[in-house]
Amino acid sequence: MSEEIEQAAGGRRARGGGGAARRAERTAVRVEFAKYIERNIPNLEILNEEALQLIEANAETVLEQIGVNFVENPAALERWRAVGADVQGERVRFPRGLARELCKTAPASFVQHARNPDRNVTIGGKNLVLAPVYGPPFVRDLEGGRRYATIADFRNFVKLGQMSKYLHHSGGTVCEPTDVAVNKRHLDMLHAHMTLSDKPYMGSVTERSRCVDSIEMSKILFGEKFVDENTVMTSLVNINSPLTFDPIMMDALEVYAAANQACIVSPFIVGGAMAPVTVAGTLTQVLAEVMVAVAYSQIIRKGAPVIFGAFVTSIDMNSGAPTFGTPEAAQITLGAGQLARRMGLPFRSAGSFCGSKLPDAQAAYETANTLNIGLLSGVNFMLHACGWLEGGLVSSYEKYVMDADQLGVLHRLAAGIDMSANGQAMEALREVGPGGHFLGCSHTQANFKDAFWKTDLFDYKPFETWDEEGARDTATLASVRVKKMLGEYQAPAIDPGINEALSEYVARKKAAVPDAFL
Amino acid sequence: MSEEIEQAAGGRRARGGGGAARRAERTAVRVEFAKYIERNIPNLEILNEEALQLIEANAETVLEQIGVNFVENPAALERWRAVGADVQGERVRFPRGLARELCKTAPASFVQHARNPDRNVTIGGKNLVLAPVYGPPFVRDLEGGRRYATIADFRNFVKLGQMSKYLHHSGGTVCEPTDVAVNKRHLDMLHAHMTLSDKPYMGSVTERSRCVDSIEMSKILFGEKFVDENTVMTSLVNINSPLTFDPIMMDALEVYAAANQACIVSPFIVGGAMAPVTVAGTLTQVLAEVMVAVAYSQIIRKGAPVIFGAFVTSIDMNSGAPTFGTPEAAQITLGAGQLARRMGLPFRSAGSFCGSKLPDAQAAYETANTLNIGLLSGVNFMLHACGWLEGGLVSSYEKYVMDADQLGVLHRLAAGIDMSANGQAMEALREVGPGGHFLGCSHTQANFKDAFWKTDLFDYKPFETWDEEGARDTATLASVRVKKMLGEYQAPAIDPGINEALSEYVARKKAAVPDAFL
Repeated sequence: MSEEIEQAAGGRRARGGGGAARRAERTAVRVEFAKYIERNIPNLEILNEEALQLIEANAETVLEQIGVNFVENPAALERWRAVGADVQGERVRFPRGLARELCKTAPASFVQHARNPDRNVTIGGKNLVLAPVYGPPFVRDLEGGRRYATIADFRNFVKLGQMSKYLHHSGGTVCEPTDVAVNKRHLDMLHAHMTLSDKPYMGSVTERSRCVDSIEMSKILFGEKFVDENTVMTSLVNINSPLTFDPIMMDALEVYAAANQACIVSPFIVGGAMAPVTVAGTLTQVLAEVMVAVAYSQIIRKGAPVIFGAFVTSIDMNSGAPTFGTPEAAQITLGAGQLARRMGLPFRSAGSFCGSKLPDAQAAYETANTLNIGLLSGVNFMLHACGWLEGGLVSSYEKYVMDADQLGVLHRLAAGIDMSANGQAMEALREVGPGGHFLGCSHTQANFKDAFWKTDLFDYKPFETWDEEGARDTATLASVRVKKMLGEYQAPAIDPGINEALSEYVARKKAAVPDAFL
Repeated sequence: MSEEIEQAAGGRRARGGGGAARRAERTAVRVEFAKYIERNIPNLEILNEEALQLIEANAETVLEQIGVNFVENPAALERWRAVGADVQGERVRFPRGLARELCKTAPASFVQHARNPDRNVTIGGKNLVLAPVYGPPFVRDLEGGRRYATIADFRNFVKLGQMSKYLHHSGGTVCEPTDVAVNKRHLDMLHAHMTLSDKPYMGSVTERSRCVDSIEMSKILFGEKFVDENTVMTSLVNINSPLTFDPIMMDALEVYAAANQACIVSPFIVGGAMAPVTVAGTLTQVLAEVMVAVAYSQIIRKGAPVIFGAFVTSIDMNSGAPTFGTPEAAQITLGAGQLARRMGLPFRSAGSFCGSKLPDAQAAYETANTLNIGLLSGVNFMLHACGWLEGGLVSSYEKYVMDADQLGVLHRLAAGIDMSANGQAMEALREVGPGGHFLGCSHTQANFKDAFWKTDLFDYKPFETWDEEGARDTATLASVRVKKMLGEYQAPAIDPGINEALSEYVARKKAAVPDAFL
């Protein structure tokens, strides 16, 4: 059993915690948290060696003959020219093997530090780190329905993340705080992650100055020297598929890579629209795009941590809507995992994806399909692991806690099968014998507390009890759980000086420029 | 793409179809059906060689030192004595290797014939045959709520099965027709499967005479000689875990094996109650039990078709309720699949399992967890593949069509990745290039119709459209689909003489004895 649940007081061993921090610690609620998943089961290798080599060769052909565009980015074009690429206008073509060779300096795994060192995560290898939904402009809950997200919602989701046992990472844009000016949002978002959670977080990517703010605020939180020497952010750099690298995203990659901060470089694919309609064609394009982005990060700084990302959905050919939890997306995720492992890179994919408007059965089928395949694809960093609704337009309060509960299933499944003498249970079989009952036997008594994964949400009661209690469905039970978690939430302890410095930084930056909503 | 969807008129090539059958054929609705799954992807091998050998050695130790009980079955005890087992009272112990050796004559795969030969299924190897829920005394639908099942419900579920594209098998007790006398139910159930569906079906197992009736009615349907020479039923023989073989179930195994009809021999395990609380301990017991049952079938008739079954749930240690879609059940299913393959036997496990009272998110998470793991466990026969609700107490109309839709995901995922030139899509990548769009390219146009699995149920519409249409959840959409399918149902053609003979057999047997409800 590699699952390690630790009973920990919020903010224990908080970096720089002084007297106030210690006092806060003594009164803090005890919050359970699980260590990131260290897989003790194999991955599902859907492609054979021949298929993998074919896709790799095709990706080299794409890079050699078709190439990619680095848009409005003369500095990047110059960098590519300097390492031997063929640059014509904004088009960059690569001699076979060049991009892959450049990728070799990227680390196979890296530690992302949290302000609470117990929450540090190692991303890569057999590990799986789970982070919440990213990006939705709307939120939905049972009482309030669907509405634009606000900074109050944002803070609620960060609190839910801090309270969620199986979530290892506080994430980034858990929803878009649409009531805050676009040019100041990142400050409030970072401030929330830094103060309301002690789990690792993501930086802003929407403009170069916001990346710089992310680093500056991290230096206040961790200390300047610590940030210079360690990775404290993993940020999301989407690739504008097909084969296009836009200047804003490349800005983010440049700033973060130069600072030795991690990026996920991630083709954003709706199959049939941004990539071919076939699985093998999509994998070829994904591999070509990721190789270029990873290579570029290594040109900026050799050894900068970077993650092979793949955000993949299929498309409903009738309506053009993206679709989730589908078999084609599963195949791409499985194949991309193999390609990432062959490059020796950490892999990001999957999540609690669904197209449904409600946290209903459709949402759950689609999500469970994706979560299970994500685990078996060898994903190392799973963004959107809980809370995703309506194709990513909505952060759902209820679905957040429903999905977060299911993440416990992944932990236990990944732990593998205990083959110790206790696991083999031969003495139980001897004690009980034919026709007996195991409930009372000594082996069961010794093991029952931890024998089975336990839901914190689902209903297992007899029909009559459940009926008397109001015949509640999962969404209704989840709504109750959301309120309970937010009610019990206590902020992890933080050094008051750091807290004040962060607030001061945010206030100063906000005051310096007028609000902009574009 | 190994998925083969055939547009077929109901009852086409119905065995013994005369003029009436041909007339019926011309007016029949065209019903789509998918061939059983032939996997083109690997299984997930969760246990390594050392662990497998350990479990196999432990199972031999269980059989050698603990043994099993054959209850109230002197003939069975005599048979065991005759092949060299150690029989003391009702306890049978086995020299190491005896049971496994006897199992070797069981076939690795077999054909179960349907009255429409297009619906024949081959059970074993890389195949996966999907059959509906089995056994619930209750039904539930959106309007009627939860209520005792009737023969009218039973017939509805058989009709839904016939109309479900991704269901290869009509199943058995799709619900318990509680309005029919217990001693006559099997006649009405078999009659429904034989006349309302042309897919393969299961026989009755609840008493020796009912097994005989199943064979007699099959002889009317297929012809006596055909049934003597072919397998036309696969029936469910549960093992009374731990390590107990009750006389009614052994009666069924004896009757069917002697007639060369297939049985699933299936330990019925609620982990922690009928087996140890650990995964490895449960696998040991399952293997020991299955080896005995398979060996016994081969003592009855060498070469009789038999399936390695494993029905496994975990338990909620607070309430004692069985739980579904859990990681421990997944691990057992994966491990049992490996053990079955090492014995060269077809494997039955998994299904649309859930504990939820409603076809809601809990139901769907639990079901999707189980369906995905079932596919990756190498299951060859999946009973309960759709319609299961509330721990198997309820056959749900809505969940039936929800699950049946998801079975299409399994078909497509199992087909593997197309690595043909068309699959590689290099010309599409060349045509579109950086920054382009694939929707209009010629490769997309040539492939879009079959590129992606399509739901018949889920909602992909824009939020506003969905909202205007009533903001329906999955269960509501499913309710609409149930009515549509039952409305469009037409019975597959059947020879009127056979139809009459079946009705006459049922009427005669019903008249021969008074109703009994015990």
